[in-house]
Amino acid sequence: MFKNKLIEEEKQREDVGFGTKTTKNIRLVKENGDFNVKKTGQSLSAKLNIYHNLLTMPTYFLTLVVFFYYLTANFIFASIYYLIGTDKLLGINNHLGMNNFWEAFFFSVQTITTLGYGRISPIGFSTNIVASFEALIGLVTFSIITGVVYGRFSKPSPKIVYSENAIISPYLGIKALMIRTANEKNNQLINVSANIIFSKNEIQNGETKRIYKNLELERKLITYFSLSWTIVHPITENSPLWKETEESLKKSDAEFLLSIQAINDTNGETIYSKKSFLFSELLWDYKFAPIIDTEDNYYLMNLEKIGTVEKVNPN
Amino acid sequence: MFKNKLIEEEKQREDVGFGTKTTKNIRLVKENGDFNVKKTGQSLSAKLNIYHNLLTMPTYFLTLVVFFYYLTANFIFASIYYLIGTDKLLGINNHLGMNNFWEAFFFSVQTITTLGYGRISPIGFSTNIVASFEALIGLVTFSIITGVVYGRFSKPSPKIVYSENAIISPYLGIKALMIRTANEKNNQLINVSANIIFSKNEIQNGETKRIYKNLELERKLITYFSLSWTIVHPITENSPLWKETEESLKKSDAEFLLSIQAINDTNGETIYSKKSFLFSELLWDYKFAPIIDTEDNYYLMNLEKIGTVEKVNPN
Amino acid sequence: MFKNKLIEEEKQREDVGFGTKTTKNIRLVKENGDFNVKKTGQSLSAKLNIYHNLLTMPTYFLTLVVFFYYLTANFIFASIYYLIGTDKLLGINNHLGMNNFWEAFFFSVQTITTLGYGRISPIGFSTNIVASFEALIGLVTFSIITGVVYGRFSKPSPKIVYSENAIISPYLGIKALMIRTANEKNNQLINVSANIIFSKNEIQNGETKRIYKNLELERKLITYFSLSWTIVHPITENSPLWKETEESLKKSDAEFLLSIQAINDTNGETIYSKKSFLFSELLWDYKFAPIIDTEDNYYLMNLEKIGTVEKVNPN
Amino acid sequence: MFKNKLIEEEKQREDVGFGTKTTKNIRLVKENGDFNVKKTGQSLSAKLNIYHNLLTMPTYFLTLVVFFYYLTANFIFASIYYLIGTDKLLGINNHLGMNNFWEAFFFSVQTITTLGYGRISPIGFSTNIVASFEALIGLVTFSIITGVVYGRFSKPSPKIVYSENAIISPYLGIKALMIRTANEKNNQLINVSANIIFSKNEIQNGETKRIYKNLELERKLITYFSLSWTIVHPITENSPLWKETEESLKKSDAEFLLSIQAINDTNGETIYSKKSFLFSELLWDYKFAPIIDTEDNYYLMNLEKIGTVEKVNPN
Repeated sequence: MFKNKLIEEEKQREDVGFGTKTTKNIRLVKENGDFNVKKTGQSLSAKLNIYHNLLTMPTYFLTLVVFFYYLTANFIFASIYYLIGTDKLLGINNHLGMNNFWEAFFFSVQTITTLGYGRISPIGFSTNIVASFEALIGLVTFSIITGVVYGRFSKPSPKIVYSENAIISPYLGIKALMIRTANEKNNQLINVSANIIFSKNEIQNGETKRIYKNLELERKLITYFSLSWTIVHPITENSPLWKETEESLKKSDAEFLLSIQAINDTNGETIYSKKSFLFSELLWDYKFAPIIDTEDNYYLMNLEKIGTVEKVNPN
Repeated sequence: MFKNKLIEEEKQREDVGFGTKTTKNIRLVKENGDFNVKKTGQSLSAKLNIYHNLLTMPTYFLTLVVFFYYLTANFIFASIYYLIGTDKLLGINNHLGMNNFWEAFFFSVQTITTLGYGRISPIGFSTNIVASFEALIGLVTFSIITGVVYGRFSKPSPKIVYSENAIISPYLGIKALMIRTANEKNNQLINVSANIIFSKNEIQNGETKRIYKNLELERKLITYFSLSWTIVHPITENSPLWKETEESLKKSDAEFLLSIQAINDTNGETIYSKKSFLFSELLWDYKFAPIIDTEDNYYLMNLEKIGTVEKVNPN
Repeated sequence: MFKNKLIEEEKQREDVGFGTKTTKNIRLVKENGDFNVKKTGQSLSAKLNIYHNLLTMPTYFLTLVVFFYYLTANFIFASIYYLIGTDKLLGINNHLGMNNFWEAFFFSVQTITTLGYGRISPIGFSTNIVASFEALIGLVTFSIITGVVYGRFSKPSPKIVYSENAIISPYLGIKALMIRTANEKNNQLINVSANIIFSKNEIQNGETKRIYKNLELERKLITYFSLSWTIVHPITENSPLWKETEESLKKSDAEFLLSIQAINDTNGETIYSKKSFLFSELLWDYKFAPIIDTEDNYYLMNLEKIGTVEKVNPN
Repeated sequence: MFKNKLIEEEKQREDVGFGTKTTKNIRLVKENGDFNVKKTGQSLSAKLNIYHNLLTMPTYFLTLVVFFYYLTANFIFASIYYLIGTDKLLGINNHLGMNNFWEAFFFSVQTITTLGYGRISPIGFSTNIVASFEALIGLVTFSIITGVVYGRFSKPSPKIVYSENAIISPYLGIKALMIRTANEKNNQLINVSANIIFSKNEIQNGETKRIYKNLELERKLITYFSLSWTIVHPITENSPLWKETEESLKKSDAEFLLSIQAINDTNGETIYSKKSFLFSELLWDYKFAPIIDTEDNYYLMNLEKIGTVEKVNPN
C-alpha cells in the first residue's frame, strides 16, 4: 500500500530535532562541540540551569563565582553581627589594627569555614543564633562548592581528537568518506561506537527542505580505543553520497555530524563527543598518513599527525 | 495450536502492573508525573523510605527537616551537658547575657559543627566523652545532610516540557496521534527514546476489563534532543486507534501514557519523564504550529509555543 | 552434523557457574538472597574486601567498627602526645578533674575531628608535627567513614517482596508456574526484567548431573513496577516442566531461581534482587488472591496479601 | 557484486585499533592488564591526566603526593605570614620552643585544616585576608584529596583471576580453546560477558599483515559469576583456529586477548578486566582439574587450583 510505503520511508529518516527549514551557513555544531541553538520562553530555573553551568563554565569564571559568594556571604553576616553590636563579639579589639566591622567580617570567615580560632567568640543570644546559623550555612554551601569542584576534577572531558578534515579516499575499488580520531589520553576507552549523520538541503515535491540521513559505517563499534580509529563510510550505490560531487555538496550546504560514544574504564562512565564537518572541510582524493609505529617492544602513536593527509590519484 | 495462540496474544499485551479492573475517572498518572497509587501493609522502613523522601520533598520542607534536626540534636546534647553540670564547661559565664542552658546549647552547636571557638571548653571526663561523641555524630550526620543537599542540587529533574494536549492530525494521507515535547534546558539530552501506552476499558468475553497496548511510533529513538521532538503514532490499520472516535474513547475512559527516557550528557545519567493524556485532553484535527526558526547564524526555539495548535480540515 | 548439534545443545544450557555436581539439600541461594558459596585460596585483600563488607555489614556492627576506630586512633595519638611530654600541651591542667593522659586523649579527639577548641594547644616542634599529621589523618579517615555511611544511606536495598511460595496454576487451558512480586517502596522501579532458572539433578548417559535451564516467561520485561507483577512461566510442550510432577521434582531435588533487575528512577541506578524456591516451596493447583483494588480516585495495593493463595480445581 | 563482498569481509574483521603492522614479540597487553602502547604529541593536560593518575597510582606514591602537597602549601602560607610579620599573629611566642617561622607554619596547618586551636590567631587586615584565603583553599583542596582517597577505596579493581595458561582440550568430539576464570572476591558479579580476540601475522596478497579475529564462544554471557567460569571456544570448521597447530601459531606470533565485562551488584557499577595469552602460554591436550566441591550444605571453590591442569590423551 502506498501510504505504508510513505510511513516506512519516513521511519528511515534520521531526526536530529532541527526541523526541515533549509539553512545557509548555519553550522549544526559549533567549534566547541555544542549545538548551534538558542531558546526563548524557558522557565527561570531552566534558563539558569545552575549546576550544569557551574560544571561547564571556564575555571577562571568558577573561581570568580566562588570568591564572589565567599565575600558576599561574609559581608552579609558581618553586617548582621555589626548591627547586633560588636560588644557581643567577645575579644574584639580595634586596637589590633582593624576597625570593628572588619573584625566582625573575619569572625564571620572563621565561622562559615568552621575554623573557629576563638580569639573572638559570640556572646548573647542573638549573636550566637546568627553564628549557629552561619556555621550551618557554611557546612551546606561549602559541600556544594567542593562538590562542584570535585565533580569538574573527576569528570574531565574526553580527549578525543579528530582529523581537521574529513576525506574522500579510495577504498576497496570504490571510494569512502573517512574521518580519523584518536584517544589523546593514556586511559582506556572501551565499547566505542560512532555515528555519522549527513545533512543537506534537498528539493522534495518542489519544496526545499533540510534533510538528515545516517551514513552506514564499515564498523560502528570497536572494543578498545587505545590508539587511533579511522571511521569509514564506504560510498556504495546505497550511500546517500553515491552521486554527490564536490560541487553538489557545496550547492546543498552539506554538513557531516560525527558522534562518538565510549566507556571510560577508569570510572565506568560513558562519555560523548561530537564534531561536524562542513562541505568545505572535506578533502577529495586524499588518504591519511600512518601514525602508528611499532618500536622495540611497544606500539607508538604520534598524535600530531592525526590530520596529516597524502594526495592520491583518484581511481 | 489454539492454546499457543492465546499465549502469544497474552505476550503481546503490555503489562503496566495495574491489573485489569475497569476504571472510571482514575488517572494512571497524576499531574506531578507520579503514578496514582497507594499501598498498605508496607514495612516501616519501606513506608518511611527516608532517602527517597529527603531527595524528593519540596525544598522548604527539607529546610524545616534540617532545622528541626539541628535544633533537636543541640537541645539534647545541651541538656546532657547541663545535667552533668555547667561547672564542667570551662569559660561558661552567665554574666555574658545568657543563662547556663543557652551557653551549653551554643557550646553544643560549636561542637556538632566542629566549629570549636573554644571560649567554652569541656573539662572532666563525662563532659569530654559527650563532646567527643557529639563531634563524631556531627561529622556523620552533616555528611548525610550535605550529601542530600548536594544530591538534590546535582540531580535536578529533567526539564522536559510537553504540549498540553495530544492531537489527532493529518499525516501522509492518514491520521496520526501526535504529542510535542522539548528539552527546556540548555544542556544536551541524547539517545532519547519514547513510548506511548494506550489504555481503555474493553469488553472481553462479556467481561469489562482495563487493557493496555503499546502504540507503534514513527520513531522510537532520536540521537539528540536539543530542540523539540514531535512524537508520532501513525494510525494505520494495525493501530489500536484505527476505529476509535472521540465518542468511543470517551466511552471507554481512554488514557495515553507517554514515557521518555534520555541520557544527560553533562553527567552521563539517565533521566526519566512521563505524562498522561486523558481522552478529554485529545484535540481532533489540529496540527502543531512551528516553534523552530533559523536566525542569522543559529537555530531559535520558542518554548512558549510548545502546545500551540492550529485547526486543520479533517482529511 | 552431529558434533555441531551437540555444540548447539551445549549453548542452550544455562551456566550459573555451579558446575554439574549433584546436590542433596544444598540451596543455591540462601534466605538472605546470597549464593550459598564459600571460597578458599583467596588473597588477603579479596578475603577482607573491606569496602564491600563495610557497605553490607549490619548497622550495629558498622557502629562498633567506627567506635573502635575512633577510640583506637585517639588512644594511639594520645599515647604519642603523652610520651613526647604533656608539658608540650599548653593549657593542660590535671586539676580540672582528669589526669594528663586523658587530657591528651581529648586533645587528640579535638584534633582528629578538626574541632580544635584550643584550651589545650600544642607547643614545640614534635607535638605540632604529630598534631598536624593527626589532623590530616582525621580529614582522610572521616571522609571514608562518612562516605561509607552516606553510601549505605543513599543506596538502600530494593524492597522487592515475593510470595512465600511459587504456585502451579491453571493458565489459558494449560498450567503455568507463577511467582508474585511487588515493589514495597513508594518510589518507582522501571524497565524491570525477570528471569527464572530451573535446576535439578538429571541422569545423562548413565551419569547423574546437576543441570540448569532457563524457563521462558510470558513476559520478561515490564515498563513500570509500581504495583505488583505476577511472573508467569506457561508450561507448554517446550517447557522443561512439561512432564514434571510434584514427586519427580522432589526426587530430582529441584530448585527455581528467580532474579529481578530494575532501574530505580530516584537515582537512575540499577538494582538486583533474587530469591530461590525449592520443590518443597511449590504449591500445586492454587492461584493468587487479588491484591489490587481501585478506590475512589486511586489504586490501592495490599502488600500483606502478596503471598495469599486460593485453592483451585486442577484442570 | 565483488566490491560489496570485499566490504562485507572488511566488516567482519575485528578492529582493536592497533593497525596492521606485523609484530615480533610485542605483547598487545602487558602483565598488569594495560595495553602495550605509548603516545607522542599529546597536549599537556592529556599527558598529565591528573585525576586518572591519582586514581591509579600506587598507594605509597599517592601518600607521597599528599604529604608533598600538605608540606608545600603550608610552607608557602607560612612564608607569607612570616613576610607580613609575625607580630600580626597574636599569641605567637618563640619562648615556647620554636622559632617564629615554625609557629607560622603550624598556624598555617591549623588554618588549612580548619582546625583553628586559636592559641595563635591572626590580627591585622593582611594576615586575616591570607588566613581567610587559606581556609578556602584548604576546604577545596582537601575535598579533592579526600575525594580521590574515597574514590580509590570505593572502586577497588575487580579481582578476576585467570588460569596461567589457555588450554586446547577435547570437547564434544572436537577440540576447544579454554581459559578458566573466577571471581576471587565474595561479592557478586552479574551479567558477565566474555570476548576473545585472536591475533596473528598473516600473508594477504603477498603482504604480511597483523590481523585480529573474534573467536565465537560456546557461551558469551553468564548471569552470575559467583564461582568459576571456563570460557570455551569450540574449534569447529568455522573457527580461525581450525587448521592451526602449535608450530603455526608460533610462526605467526599468535596472541589471544580475553576481555571480561561484568556488573558488581554491591554498587551496580560495570567493571572490566582483560588478559592476553601468547602462543607460548598455550597448553595442548590438557584439561582443567575440578575446583568446585559440594560440602555439607554449601558449595566450596579452591582458588589456588584455578590454573591446575591435567594431561589428556589427544583425541
